[in-house]
Amino acid sequence: MLVVMKANVEQHEIDRVCAAIRDMGLDPHPIPGQVRTAIGMTGNTGPVDPGRLAALPGVVELIQVTQPYKLTGREMQPEDSIVRVGDVEFGGPSIAVIAGPCSVETRDQTMTTARCVRERGADVLRGGAYKPRTSPYAFQGLGREGLDILATARAETGMPVVSEVVDVETFGAVEDAVDMFQIGARNMQNYSLLKRAGRSRKPVLLKRSMSATLKEFLLAAEYIMAGGNRDVILCERGIRSFSDFARFTLDLTIVPELKRITHLPVIVDPSHAAGRRELVIPLARAAIAVGADGIIVEVHPEPEKALSDGPQALTPDMFEELMEELRIITPAVRRASRVTA
Amino acid sequence: MLVVMKANVEQHEIDRVCAAIRDMGLDPHPIPGQVRTAIGMTGNTGPVDPGRLAALPGVVELIQVTQPYKLTGREMQPEDSIVRVGDVEFGGPSIAVIAGPCSVETRDQTMTTARCVRERGADVLRGGAYKPRTSPYAFQGLGREGLDILATARAETGMPVVSEVVDVETFGAVEDAVDMFQIGARNMQNYSLLKRAGRSRKPVLLKRSMSATLKEFLLAAEYIMAGGNRDVILCERGIRSFSDFARFTLDLTIVPELKRITHLPVIVDPSHAAGRRELVIPLARAAIAVGADGIIVEVHPEPEKALSDGPQALTPDMFEELMEELRIITPAVRRASRVTA
Amino acid sequence: MLVVMKANVEQHEIDRVCAAIRDMGLDPHPIPGQVRTAIGMTGNTGPVDPGRLAALPGVVELIQVTQPYKLTGREMQPEDSIVRVGDVEFGGPSIAVIAGPCSVETRDQTMTTARCVRERGADVLRGGAYKPRTSPYAFQGLGREGLDILATARAETGMPVVSEVVDVETFGAVEDAVDMFQIGARNMQNYSLLKRAGRSRKPVLLKRSMSATLKEFLLAAEYIMAGGNRDVILCERGIRSFSDFARFTLDLTIVPELKRITHLPVIVDPSHAAGRRELVIPLARAAIAVGADGIIVEVHPEPEKALSDGPQALTPDMFEELMEELRIITPAVRRASRVTA
Amino acid sequence: MLVVMKANVEQHEIDRVCAAIRDMGLDPHPIPGQVRTAIGMTGNTGPVDPGRLAALPGVVELIQVTQPYKLTGREMQPEDSIVRVGDVEFGGPSIAVIAGPCSVETRDQTMTTARCVRERGADVLRGGAYKPRTSPYAFQGLGREGLDILATARAETGMPVVSEVVDVETFGAVEDAVDMFQIGARNMQNYSLLKRAGRSRKPVLLKRSMSATLKEFLLAAEYIMAGGNRDVILCERGIRSFSDFARFTLDLTIVPELKRITHLPVIVDPSHAAGRRELVIPLARAAIAVGADGIIVEVHPEPEKALSDGPQALTPDMFEELMEELRIITPAVRRASRVTA
Repeated sequence: MLVVMKANVEQHEIDRVCAAIRDMGLDPHPIPGQVRTAIGMTGNTGPVDPGRLAALPGVVELIQVTQPYKLTGREMQPEDSIVRVGDVEFGGPSIAVIAGPCSVETRDQTMTTARCVRERGADVLRGGAYKPRTSPYAFQGLGREGLDILATARAETGMPVVSEVVDVETFGAVEDAVDMFQIGARNMQNYSLLKRAGRSRKPVLLKRSMSATLKEFLLAAEYIMAGGNRDVILCERGIRSFSDFARFTLDLTIVPELKRITHLPVIVDPSHAAGRRELVIPLARAAIAVGADGIIVEVHPEPEKALSDGPQALTPDMFEELMEELRIITPAVRRASRVTA
Repeated sequence: MLVVMKANVEQHEIDRVCAAIRDMGLDPHPIPGQVRTAIGMTGNTGPVDPGRLAALPGVVELIQVTQPYKLTGREMQPEDSIVRVGDVEFGGPSIAVIAGPCSVETRDQTMTTARCVRERGADVLRGGAYKPRTSPYAFQGLGREGLDILATARAETGMPVVSEVVDVETFGAVEDAVDMFQIGARNMQNYSLLKRAGRSRKPVLLKRSMSATLKEFLLAAEYIMAGGNRDVILCERGIRSFSDFARFTLDLTIVPELKRITHLPVIVDPSHAAGRRELVIPLARAAIAVGADGIIVEVHPEPEKALSDGPQALTPDMFEELMEELRIITPAVRRASRVTA
Repeated sequence: MLVVMKANVEQHEIDRVCAAIRDMGLDPHPIPGQVRTAIGMTGNTGPVDPGRLAALPGVVELIQVTQPYKLTGREMQPEDSIVRVGDVEFGGPSIAVIAGPCSVETRDQTMTTARCVRERGADVLRGGAYKPRTSPYAFQGLGREGLDILATARAETGMPVVSEVVDVETFGAVEDAVDMFQIGARNMQNYSLLKRAGRSRKPVLLKRSMSATLKEFLLAAEYIMAGGNRDVILCERGIRSFSDFARFTLDLTIVPELKRITHLPVIVDPSHAAGRRELVIPLARAAIAVGADGIIVEVHPEPEKALSDGPQALTPDMFEELMEELRIITPAVRRASRVTA
Repeated sequence: MLVVMKANVEQHEIDRVCAAIRDMGLDPHPIPGQVRTAIGMTGNTGPVDPGRLAALPGVVELIQVTQPYKLTGREMQPEDSIVRVGDVEFGGPSIAVIAGPCSVETRDQTMTTARCVRERGADVLRGGAYKPRTSPYAFQGLGREGLDILATARAETGMPVVSEVVDVETFGAVEDAVDMFQIGARNMQNYSLLKRAGRSRKPVLLKRSMSATLKEFLLAAEYIMAGGNRDVILCERGIRSFSDFARFTLDLTIVPELKRITHLPVIVDPSHAAGRRELVIPLARAAIAVGADGIIVEVHPEPEKALSDGPQALTPDMFEELMEELRIITPAVRRASRVTA
C-alpha cells in the first residue's frame, strides 16, 4: 500500500499519516518527491482496513502494491497445480475436454449424449441437475432425479461427471453424486457457497462471474482454498460488455494472465459466452490456442428439442469436427490432446 | 416472440417453423415483407423454450416482443406499490432515507450513529451484521452479536432497521431481528436466497447486481414475488463499466425507467457506487432529483476508524448538510421530505 | 511514476532501473519494503516514454502517481474558470441552459424553436448544421445553409449559438458563424480537430467520447488548451456500458469528480444519453442536482417530424416544465437559475 | 422495422401509425396478436427517419428487422472479398501477417525491423509516421520524414507497407507513400476521414473503435464503400470493458460473427489490445484459431528503447516463435501459412 499525499503537503499531515500507519501495527516509509510525497508501508495488515487512511488530511490516493493472493498466487507455489477428476488431469501436459448437455432432461437424452461425447474423445461428462435460471418461470432442472441419471451415465461410460451446486441445502447431494462440482458465474461471490466448497474433498470448477475482475475471480478461489480445498479449476465463460452481438464477451486474454499469476488450471466455456452454436467451434479452438488447460462445451443429440440453451448446443457431428481441429492445434501450445484419432 | 426468416426463404421452411410453433401449443402468424418474412406467435409459452426455433432452417433471429414481468410489471398493476417498513412508507408521497454504518462494529458505534442519523432526519437505520467481503481475509461482520446490537438500537431510537441476509442458514436469525432484510448485489441471482425471501413475510431491499440488465433485475424481483412476498424495494447501487475513477458507475437513468415499467419502489445507494464520501452528497441529491423514492447512505461518527468502507461513510455533519439539500430538491419532484427542518 | 519490482528482486536489477531512470533525465528514489522494493522518480519526463522501464528485468508494474493535467488541472489554477459565450457565463454563479433542435432542418423549424426556448428561459441556442451520422445513408445536415439559418436566429433572438464542427475543412465556416463550437463525442480523440480548436479564439464545447476515461477526456481538453485556447467547456453525454435500456449510460458521477480535478466548467447532455424524451427531464434535473454548471437539451416544436433524433427531443411544454423544476433545484447546489419565473 | 403497440391498443391508434407509415412512402402491415399488435413495414426508408413513429400514441417500441449493410453485407455479395496489398492477398486461402514497429523512429530502427520481420515470414510492413497520441505532450511521430523511411524500407525489402492516416490534410502524403493506409480506432467514426478514404484507390485497414458495436463497425466500412473504395480490411483491436488487467478486452468472438455477416477480410491486432508483449503471442495464436484472415503485430529490435508502446513490442525471437506456432495452427482452420519454414 502506498499513500499518495497532495502537492504542497504540510509536515504535520505527513506525521499524522505515519502515526496512523504505526497505530495499525505497520511501518511507514515516507518518500519525498519533487512534486509530491508518497508514504509506503510494510508489515502485515491483518484485519485492519488501511482504507481509513484515505480520510486523513492531505491524502490524495491509496495505491495497492502487494497483491492479496496468498494461496492462489504463484509467489506461494511457482509450479502448476494439477487437479485430478477421476483419472483425468487438468493442468498437466494434456488438455481436457468436458462435454455434455446443458441440462439433464431424460435418461435417454443423457445416455445418448454421454456415449456420443465419449466416443468422440470427451474426458468428462457435464450435465445440470439443479439449474440457476434468470426467470422463475423457466425450467429449473430435474434435481435429485437428474443426479441419479448422471450416476448411471458415469457407471456405464466410465466418465467422471461434473454438475452444478446452487446452494448449501442441496450441496451434499450433488457432492456425493459427482466427481467435480461446479460453482456457476452467478454464485462466484456467494461466499457461503464458497466456504462450503472449501470444506469439500472434491474438486471445484469455479466459473468467473460476468462482472468479476481478475482479482475478484482469484479471491473467490482464495475463499475455497482458505477453507482447505486446494483442488480448484478456474473457468472463463464471458463477461458483460457493451458488445451486443453475442451473449457475453469471451475474455480470452485472461487465460494467459491467470496462468502467469496463479498455479491453478484454467479452462474456457465457449458455449455460454457465445449463445449460438456456430460461434462455439471457433471460440473453442481459440481457447486452446490461447493456452487454456481445457474446455467445457455443451453437446445435445437434438438441440432443437433442448429444454435449456438449445441454440448453443453442438450437434454430435460438430463436436467431432471440433475434436479433430483441437488435435491439430495442441502441438502449437506444446500440449497433447488426450485422445488419439 | 417474433421469428425473423432469412431473405429469399422458401415456403417449406416457413411451414416447418409454423409447425414447430404449433407443436409448442402456440399460434403462428406469418408476416410476409418485401425483403423478409417474419413469423409472430401468440399464446402462453409455459415451460417450453422457444429458443429451439433458432435451430430450424431459414431462421435468422428470434426477437422477444412481450416482456416477461408478470408480477413486477405495471401491466399487471398500474398504480404504485407502497412498501411499509415499520411506520415508514416507500413509494408514497414522501421520500425515505435509510442511514447508518456499513458494519455494526460495536454497541457504542452503532448507538451513536443511530441517534445521530435519527436526530438529522433518517427514517430507517441500516447496519451490516453478516458482511459479504471480496477477500476471505477481510472483516466478515459480528454476526448474531451484530443483530442484538441492532435490536437495541431499534428499541432505543424507535427506528426500523434493515440488515443484509447472505445465506439461507442465517436467514431466519436476520429475518427475526429486522424490519426489512437486504439482498446484496452479489446475491441478486442467488436463486435459493431469492426463493427463501419469497417465503418471508417481511419486506425485502433488493440491490441490483453490478452486471444486471434491467430485465435481470426485475426478474430477480419476480422470483421473490412469485414466491408470495409482494413487498420488494429495488435499489440501484452502481454497475461495472470501463469508467475507473469511482468504484462503480451509478446508473441513475434506470430509476425513471424502472418507475415506468414496474410499480415497485426504487431507491438508490450512492455510497457503494461512489466509494468516496465527497461524491456521496452530489449523487444522493441527483438520486432524489431523478425521481427515486429514497436513498440508503452510510454514516459513521468516526469514518477513519471504520472496519469496512470507511472512505465512503459520511460524517454526521455531512449527513446533516445532505438532509437540508434534499428538503430543497423534493418539491421539484412533487415529493415531500418526511422530516421538517 | 512508481516502478514496482518483483519480490526477491536482486540489487543489480534495482541498479539497472535506477540507471535507466537517470538516462531519461530523472531522479530515481528506491523505496525498500518488507516484501517488495518500489522505485519512485521525480523530474519532468518530457518526450521520453517511461513505459520502456516495464521491459527491464525485475520490473512488475509501473504506477502513475503524478497526474498529467498541466493546464486543465486545479493544481495549476485552483479557482473555477468562467467561460463566456456571448453574454452567458458557464462556470459562474448561475447555471446555463443550451437548448434547440438536434439538426437545423428549415428556417421555420429553427426560428420557431429558437423563440420557443428563448421565451422559456434558455441561454444559448443549439442546432447542428454538419451532422456526424453512424450510417452513410442518414441525413447529414444542411451544411452552410444551416449556418445561415442559425445566424438569422441569433440576430432575431439575441441568443448566442453553438454548432458542431466535424472536420478541419469546414471548421472556419462554422467558427465564423457561431459563438461557441462543439466537438462531438466521436471526434473527442480526433487530434487534428483538437489542435485546430486550440488555434481558435472562440470557446469550445468538448463532449466526452462514449468510451473515454476521465483521464482521456481531460487530456483531450489539454490538447486544446496546449494550443492556446483556454475557453473549454466539458460535457458528459453518456458512456457505453452493458446496460441496454437506454442509448448510453449517463455517468453523472464524473461531474463532481471533474469539478474536483479541473477548473473548467462541466455541463451535461441528457438528450443523447437517454435517447427517449421521457427520460430527459429526470436526467436534466439530476445533472443540475449533481453539480453541473449547465445542461444542453434538444427541443423540437414537432418531434414526430424531426429528421434526426426525434424520439429524444422535448416538446415546448416539456421544456417549460423542466425549466420550472430546475428553478426549484438550483438553490440546493448554491446556484442561481439565470431566469426569473 | 416493426412497430410494437401497447397491450389493449385502440384501433384509431393503429390507424394513425399506419397512416404515418404511408406518409413515409412505406407499406404498413398490422399483425394482431393475443396480447399485442405489432405493425410491420416494407419499402425503402430513404432519408426519412422512422424513429418519428416512436412518438405516436400507443407505440411501445420500434424493432429493427432488416440490417442496414448494403455494400458490406453478404446478402449483397455472398462470396469472400479478397483485398490485394502489393502482391499479398487478405481474405484468400492464406493468412497474412503484418509486422513492424509501432512508430517509425529512425532509419536504422525501421530498416533493422523490416529485414528482421521479412526474414521471419512477415508479409506486410507496418510503421506509424503520424501518431495519434492521448497526451499532447507525447511523441507525435516523424511525419513526412517517417514516410520517406518507409519508402526506403519498401524499396529495399520488397514488402508492401501500411501506415496510419490521421487527417484529411496529410492524407494524400500518406496515401502516396503506402500500399495500404490505416484508419485507427479513435478515427473509426471520423466521417470526413472515412469519406476521404472512400475516394482513394488504395486499400484501407479499418480498425474497430474501442466502443464500436458490430453494427457501427460495419457502417464505418459502409461509409468507405459507399464512397467507391471496395478494398476494406476490418481489424479487431480490443474494446473497452470493466476488465482492467490488460489495456483492452480483445473481442475475438467478433471475428467469426463478422465473417458470417460480411464478405470483407477480418484481421486482429493483439498488440494494442494486450499492451504487454507476453500476452501478444497467445492472443495472436487465438486470433488465427478463431478464423481471422491475418494479424498485425508490433515488433521492435530493442523494445526497451521504443519511443511509443515499447512494452507491447515483440522481440525478433518472440516473433520467430510466433510464426512457427501459426504454421502449426493454420491447417486447423483450413488455411495455409504463406511462408514455408
